[in-house]
Amino acid sequence: MSENKKKYREISEIGEFGLINHITKDINLKHSNTLKGVGDDAAVIDYGEICAVVTTDLLIEGIHFNLIYTPLKHLGYKAVVVNLSDVYAMNAIPKQIIVSIAISKKFAIEHVEEIYEGIKLACENYNIDLIGGDTSSSLTGLAISITAIGEAQKEDIVYRNTAKKNDILCVTGNLGSAYMGLQLLEREKELFNNDPNFKPSLEGYDYILQRQLKPEARKEIIEFFKDLGIKPTSMIDISDGLSSEIKHICEKSDVGCKIFQDKIPIDENASNMANEFNMEPLTAALNGGEDYELLFTINVNDLEKVQNNPLIHPIGHIADKDHGAVLITSSGKSIHLQAQGWIH
Amino acid sequence: MSENKKKYREISEIGEFGLINHITKDINLKHSNTLKGVGDDAAVIDYGEICAVVTTDLLIEGIHFNLIYTPLKHLGYKAVVVNLSDVYAMNAIPKQIIVSIAISKKFAIEHVEEIYEGIKLACENYNIDLIGGDTSSSLTGLAISITAIGEAQKEDIVYRNTAKKNDILCVTGNLGSAYMGLQLLEREKELFNNDPNFKPSLEGYDYILQRQLKPEARKEIIEFFKDLGIKPTSMIDISDGLSSEIKHICEKSDVGCKIFQDKIPIDENASNMANEFNMEPLTAALNGGEDYELLFTINVNDLEKVQNNPLIHPIGHIADKDHGAVLITSSGKSIHLQAQGWIH
Repeated sequence: MSENKKKYREISEIGEFGLINHITKDINLKHSNTLKGVGDDAAVIDYGEICAVVTTDLLIEGIHFNLIYTPLKHLGYKAVVVNLSDVYAMNAIPKQIIVSIAISKKFAIEHVEEIYEGIKLACENYNIDLIGGDTSSSLTGLAISITAIGEAQKEDIVYRNTAKKNDILCVTGNLGSAYMGLQLLEREKELFNNDPNFKPSLEGYDYILQRQLKPEARKEIIEFFKDLGIKPTSMIDISDGLSSEIKHICEKSDVGCKIFQDKIPIDENASNMANEFNMEPLTAALNGGEDYELLFTINVNDLEKVQNNPLIHPIGHIADKDHGAVLITSSGKSIHLQAQGWIH
Repeated sequence: MSENKKKYREISEIGEFGLINHITKDINLKHSNTLKGVGDDAAVIDYGEICAVVTTDLLIEGIHFNLIYTPLKHLGYKAVVVNLSDVYAMNAIPKQIIVSIAISKKFAIEHVEEIYEGIKLACENYNIDLIGGDTSSSLTGLAISITAIGEAQKEDIVYRNTAKKNDILCVTGNLGSAYMGLQLLEREKELFNNDPNFKPSLEGYDYILQRQLKPEARKEIIEFFKDLGIKPTSMIDISDGLSSEIKHICEKSDVGCKIFQDKIPIDENASNMANEFNMEPLTAALNGGEDYELLFTINVNDLEKVQNNPLIHPIGHIADKDHGAVLITSSGKSIHLQAQGWIH
C-alpha cells in the first residue's frame, strides 16, 4: 500500500453497487458451461443433466450484525438462510453449503458451538448438507462466509433480466418487519448504553424481532411454483429493500414498472412499530432491508393461479422502460422509486 | 454473548484441527449426490455426467497476510491460487471462482482495483471464470473469501483417505521456500519498524519472495497425470507443511509411512536463507507452510512413469499403521513426524 503519487478515490464516491459494476465490467467468461456469471442472485453452471446454482455472502461483525443483541445461534441460522434465499430466487433448490468462519480470541469453543447449532438447525429445516469450509483466526471479531449450492433444470431457472411488459409484479409475505425489528434493537441498545441498569423491554415484539434475528427463506413459494407449474418471468430476493430490488429487475430487464402503495403488504406489527418511531411504514417496506421475501413477475395468464395463495401479493405491473419505476401512492400521486440500497 | 454461568474453554485448548473435528463430527449427509463432505481438500457433488469439486478459503488481514509487505495485486493472485491448489489436489480441473471481499475505509477504489487485477490475472493464467461474489464494508481491514469450483469425472477424483501400503509417496517442486520468504519479509519488517530510515534489502531473494507472495498451483502436474494415464492413489496439497499433510494422509487412510530426509526437495535459495537464519532447512520443509505443492501416493507400478518428470520427487512409501509416520534422517535416525500445522 505504498501511496506513491497516485490519486485515490474513496469507495463512497461510487457506492457498493458502483464498485461491483466497476470491478466486474470487463469480465469475459471463458467456459461455455458458465451460463450466468456476476449480476444475478446466484451464478449458474451447466453440468449437462442438471445446473448448479452458486451464491455466497460474507457477514462481518459490526457491519452486518451486532453481537450485543444477536444470539450466536440465530446468527448462524441467519447466515445460512440469507444464502438459501438467493438460491430460491433463481427458482432452484439449495442442497449444499460451505461455511468459513474467522474468530478472534474473545470467542470460546462454546461460542463456536452455538454458531454451528444455528447453522445445523438451518440445514435441518431446509434439507441442506454442510459439506466443507474453513476456520481461521481473526484479529478483531467474527466473520462468516457461506457459499450455498443449489440445483435446477436449465429451463426452470429464473433470472432477474427477463421481466416483460405487462407482467404482474408480486411480492411474498410482508415487507419492512425486519427493518423495524432492527430499529427496536438499536433503540434498546442505545438506552442500555446510556444506562447500564436499563432493562431492554422486547416483550410483545416477537414477530419483528424474529424477522430481524432469525429470518426464514421462502422455500414454500418455490415448491408452490413447482406444484402449480408456474414459472415466474423474473425473480430476485428482497435483501436490500423493495425499491432497490425493483430497480434491479427494471434495469436488468430494460423495462419500467408501476406499483401501488395500497398493495404493498406490511404487517401490523411493523406498522405499529413504525408509528411508535414516527416514521412511515411505507419507508420501511421500500427501503428497509433483510426481509428475504421474493419479488417476482409472472405472465398475466398466471395471475389467477397465484391469487389464492395468501403469501403472494400482486403489487403492480411491468411497463415500458420510459415510464421508469413508479409508485402510485394511496392519494394517487406518482413517485419515482429511489434505489437507496440497504445501508448497513 | 451473555456469559451466564457457563464454563468457557479457549479454542487454543484444542487447536484449529481440533475445532474443525469438534464442530463437524456429527454431520450426517442427506443428499445422495453429496459424494464427499467435510474432510478433504474439497467437497464433491455428483451431477450425473460430471462431478463438481468445491473448496473455499477465507483470508484475513493480519492473520494470513500483512499489507506492509504484500502488494495488493499479489494478494489477489495468491487468494485465487490457494483455492485452485485445493481443486488440483482432488485431481480435478478448476473452472470457476466466486470472490467476496470486505474492506475498511482505509481502502480506496484503486486498492480494490489492484486486488482484482491480481484475481483476474490468476483467472487468465489458470483459465478460470470469475462468476460472482459479494462486496462489503469491514470495520478493521481486509478479508477475502474465495470459493473455487472444479470439474472431474467421478472415477478420476483422488481423495486423501485411499493411500495403500507400499504406495510411493511423492512431492512436487520443492518445500520450505515460501516459509523462508516469509521469514525474510518479517525480518526486514522488524528492522524497518525499529528504524524508519532502514531500506529493506530484498535483492537476490526473488525466488523465495515469489514463492511467498505470488505462489503458483500445480496445474501442470494434473495435466501430466492425465497425459500419462496416472491416477494417484491419494493426494493432498501442501499448505500447512509436509509433516502436517503426511499425517492427514496417514490418519485418513489408516496407514503409516516412511520418508527419507535426503529425498525431500529443498531449493538452494531456501537452504541458503535458512542457513542465514541459523535454522535447519529441513524444519522449513517439514513445518513451513504455503508451498502449495502436491503430496500424493502412487502405486509402485506407476513409479517409472513419474521418474522422468523433474518436478516429481519420490520421498518414501506408505507402511503399516503401527509404524506411524516416520522420517529417516541423513544419519539414519528414525524420527516420528509431528503435525505442527501452520501457525499463522
